[in-house]
Amino acid sequence: MAKEYVVAILGATGAVGHRMIEQLAASSIPVKEVKLLASARSAGTQLKFRDQTLTVEETTPDSFEGVDLVLSSAGGSTSKKFLPEAVKRGAVCVDNTSAYRMEPDVPLVVPEVNPDTLAQHHGIVANPNCSTIQMVVALEPIRRAFGLKQIIVSTYQAASGAGQSALNEFYQQARDYLDGKEMQANILPTKGDKKHYPLAFNLLPQIDVLEDSGYSHEEWKMIHETKKIMVGDMNSPEIKVTATCVRVPVPISHGESVYFEVEDKSATVEQIRELLAQAPGVVVQDDIQHQIYPQPINAVGKGDTFVGRLRPDYENKGAFNMWIVADNLLKGAALNTVQNAEELVKRGLI
Amino acid sequence: MAKEYVVAILGATGAVGHRMIEQLAASSIPVKEVKLLASARSAGTQLKFRDQTLTVEETTPDSFEGVDLVLSSAGGSTSKKFLPEAVKRGAVCVDNTSAYRMEPDVPLVVPEVNPDTLAQHHGIVANPNCSTIQMVVALEPIRRAFGLKQIIVSTYQAASGAGQSALNEFYQQARDYLDGKEMQANILPTKGDKKHYPLAFNLLPQIDVLEDSGYSHEEWKMIHETKKIMVGDMNSPEIKVTATCVRVPVPISHGESVYFEVEDKSATVEQIRELLAQAPGVVVQDDIQHQIYPQPINAVGKGDTFVGRLRPDYENKGAFNMWIVADNLLKGAALNTVQNAEELVKRGLI
Repeated sequence: MAKEYVVAILGATGAVGHRMIEQLAASSIPVKEVKLLASARSAGTQLKFRDQTLTVEETTPDSFEGVDLVLSSAGGSTSKKFLPEAVKRGAVCVDNTSAYRMEPDVPLVVPEVNPDTLAQHHGIVANPNCSTIQMVVALEPIRRAFGLKQIIVSTYQAASGAGQSALNEFYQQARDYLDGKEMQANILPTKGDKKHYPLAFNLLPQIDVLEDSGYSHEEWKMIHETKKIMVGDMNSPEIKVTATCVRVPVPISHGESVYFEVEDKSATVEQIRELLAQAPGVVVQDDIQHQIYPQPINAVGKGDTFVGRLRPDYENKGAFNMWIVADNLLKGAALNTVQNAEELVKRGLI
Repeated sequence: MAKEYVVAILGATGAVGHRMIEQLAASSIPVKEVKLLASARSAGTQLKFRDQTLTVEETTPDSFEGVDLVLSSAGGSTSKKFLPEAVKRGAVCVDNTSAYRMEPDVPLVVPEVNPDTLAQHHGIVANPNCSTIQMVVALEPIRRAFGLKQIIVSTYQAASGAGQSALNEFYQQARDYLDGKEMQANILPTKGDKKHYPLAFNLLPQIDVLEDSGYSHEEWKMIHETKKIMVGDMNSPEIKVTATCVRVPVPISHGESVYFEVEDKSATVEQIRELLAQAPGVVVQDDIQHQIYPQPINAVGKGDTFVGRLRPDYENKGAFNMWIVADNLLKGAALNTVQNAEELVKRGLI
């Protein structure tokens, strides 16, 4: 009989946590038991896994006794605190926070791109940032076929990327604005920062904290994670990457305007479109005649990465523009985490 | 005594038309009389110019008898129909539509960038597209100091760029969404096209019609207009330009994520920031420590172009990212039109 797994979901009550429970239920992972873990504040909450009603427990080191697999999305400091405890007790963790992504011995994995690196894990596998995942899913087939020299990305990121409380704040702002009331901002652009601004009917060119380099932490994530996932080295000069990350007044699903330059200058739009149509996890929505292109409202709840508006830079042979949309809570977070766990199981790495 | 001008405003009842009336009232142009012109449907509407109440008249060729200056923003076909009639009757027209922008003998003018080309007019001066104006205002000081090789822009364009009816539709969609009702779309992404999609809580990577080239008409406008304004030739290879234009759920003020590469590789962020701080029409809002950066809600009603998030591409010497925001109805339309008219008056070209 196939092994069955005891799975703990850390951060079960958050926007991503809810979706991890759903994605785990829909996955191929043979689940023996699920433990839902969260902070003391959320302990006692009842949530469904398939037809079972489970009670959320407060996370302690001992919560991980007997656990085989941890899916974690409770913030970087929670991961730092508890994942080593889980590993010590024999669990393998797939972590959706930024805590371990840049550790050289932690694989940073998108199953469509670099699943083989899972074999190098020492108990922790990191899930990339939402904005990185959808971009590398769309670019990897192109990189493999034509080589990739440079990526210049501008993001259009949804409110839910900042968490459920940010999403709630955003909706309240939208209601207040339409009612002619003043908008209140206590969370966005980023919970930990000093100033807060309304997102509704506005644009905030800050995601995560801004660093002295001039880049936001989110922008650096896109740069370093893309290099690590595609080339295996977060500082690799092989693919140049630069990013501008902007929060937009959309609840769920990130958009990305991506300019990329390939090595093989003979590459055509038709070849790239054909490649993407065959690529795992990618859906091409690119029919100019019928005004078909990816839109956030159509991507919500879907696991795919949607690509369209593909066209050449007519003044730079080998350079192209495209538009990518994916559900940031699913492919950008919960789904990719569960897909990584499925791969670990399939490969006998857990 | 200084000459006083009879000024006709064509398209007086639109979102831009209203602002043209206000900007004309605030301008240095000595106004003898104002005629407000619109379609038969809007004739009879009463609007204020300074302390006068004026009645909107239906536009006919004879409306332009005795008119010195026409400010036009009633759509391309209306301009094509009436501006030659106005010119025939001795008026000089500043046209905010796309009707004449690419005509070789029509100056396409942003006063901060290429005011000297006004002298070449043959009765018509074209006002560039909203998304072009704010970009060239911010880039021209950089081009003059360091040369400009390439521009890669992704836009975040407000609903009002599609007109007052699109803005109304957008607000109604937002209300319906928050009330749990289905959103209706009859105008956006672009009035003349076959399919319509909701903009509220969504992103639409289509502005104006999509062409067989893969680019939208808006994207081509940014490419060709930028070349014509900066280099004097809409097809000049001197500055490479590519654009991705996206409509975002914001009522007023466009955002732009601009990646640019200069000729002089010694250029630094500090030098560019200093240049921009001195540049006419530009306000630098770029203080990372205090989370200061341009935001649409802060730009509404202002005449300046706001620039921030300036930072180098650390992997490409001489390349930089920046974030530009301006009120698309003011600097992007009504204000730039009136500024062009002011320049014409100042230079005795009318």
